[in-house]
Amino acid sequence: MTIKVYGSLTTVPTRAVVLLCLANNIQYELVEVDLAKLEQQTPEFKALNPAGQVPVLDDDGFILPESTAILRYLAASRHLPDHWFPVDVKARACVDHLLDWYHTNIRQTSGYVFEKAFRPRLFKREPDLVAIRLADGKMNSAMDLLEESFLKAEEGRGPFLLGSSQPCLADICIACECTQTRVLSQADQEKIFTGRDKTKKWLELMEKTLEPHFAEVHKPIDDLFRILEAARSGN
Amino acid sequence: MTIKVYGSLTTVPTRAVVLLCLANNIQYELVEVDLAKLEQQTPEFKALNPAGQVPVLDDDGFILPESTAILRYLAASRHLPDHWFPVDVKARACVDHLLDWYHTNIRQTSGYVFEKAFRPRLFKREPDLVAIRLADGKMNSAMDLLEESFLKAEEGRGPFLLGSSQPCLADICIACECTQTRVLSQADQEKIFTGRDKTKKWLELMEKTLEPHFAEVHKPIDDLFRILEAARSGN
Repeated sequence: MTIKVYGSLTTVPTRAVVLLCLANNIQYELVEVDLAKLEQQTPEFKALNPAGQVPVLDDDGFILPESTAILRYLAASRHLPDHWFPVDVKARACVDHLLDWYHTNIRQTSGYVFEKAFRPRLFKREPDLVAIRLADGKMNSAMDLLEESFLKAEEGRGPFLLGSSQPCLADICIACECTQTRVLSQADQEKIFTGRDKTKKWLELMEKTLEPHFAEVHKPIDDLFRILEAARSGN
Repeated sequence: MTIKVYGSLTTVPTRAVVLLCLANNIQYELVEVDLAKLEQQTPEFKALNPAGQVPVLDDDGFILPESTAILRYLAASRHLPDHWFPVDVKARACVDHLLDWYHTNIRQTSGYVFEKAFRPRLFKREPDLVAIRLADGKMNSAMDLLEESFLKAEEGRGPFLLGSSQPCLADICIACECTQTRVLSQADQEKIFTGRDKTKKWLELMEKTLEPHFAEVHKPIDDLFRILEAARSGN
């Protein structure tokens, strides 16, 4: 049975769900929700998810919003390899910790990208300098934590999050959050990743480990970079 | 073995963890972290949780930050009754959905309360009117969703979230978020709950179902209301 994923690959949570599907050969149909046209706010979409947010899963009539709930559900219902979401109670708790940290900390990266790139360039609104400064601070604190606390390869541990030898659900979510910065100007991207060598190396490893799927789910955001770059050079 | 919970009952996430412990007779020691003194930012605390956030669980040396990860871990490791966090894959996914929604939506209630009450009254800083307006909007959208979509008693279903007959982990988190409003002025509290009768009824049911523990974990926030009320009447 092919599942349906309602969403847009230009958003982190949809990208994470589709990447897990591709990496595990889960048959899916992506039902594109045009966020620029506010299709997520239509009555039809809100019948699926009253919160008006993507992605939403439809698994043969079982409707499930929220990306990390969807990832956990797919791992359990499709019996994915244990490394994605371990059955061991303590190992699973460590993945749960990171999935929550994704919500409560690094998710601010999308906020920064929205304020810095999408609001002025796509929505043609004045940049909100206070919002940019706040989101920048939160994103940078989270990026510091990722670099300094969650990547352990240099301590002789595995190269994925928390020193694992294979990626888990949180590697997918957090990597897809970091790559949201791809739509920023080259100068902004360099500023974010300078001095964060472990993070850069881990992102390259994620791309390599999950090739060609990692590149595939990032095509829409890479296309968006080119559109924004043209707008930036036009100014 | 008694677990340690590092945190403060004046915060929603610590309250949720301690409430689950009390409701299930899990022996715990609350190690008070004084947030007003920024104890969560000390090197000692950051050795437990580099993100500098409460609560943190110490289960015989197994250190786990993030409240919803802790709740899931306690449910699994202590074999709590199934209704808290069902084993059935789809039923569990529905609880996961609400735990994520707590992070991504209704958690803004604490933001509103911070801006409206804690910042001006406890930290003696100027109220940030833009932040109050933004947080107010997000909190109200989330409260609408709770009232209109997640409580189903009037449709002949159970009285807890998603129409269940018994509370789940998400009932605890979301109820403890709603009760953060208890430190606001009476007028502000009335404004928030007017027309939200299902939510009021569900909160009363949560208090009754989990008595005397619900009242016990709310004592510090109720004490804080009296301190803030004195400050408000002094103006």
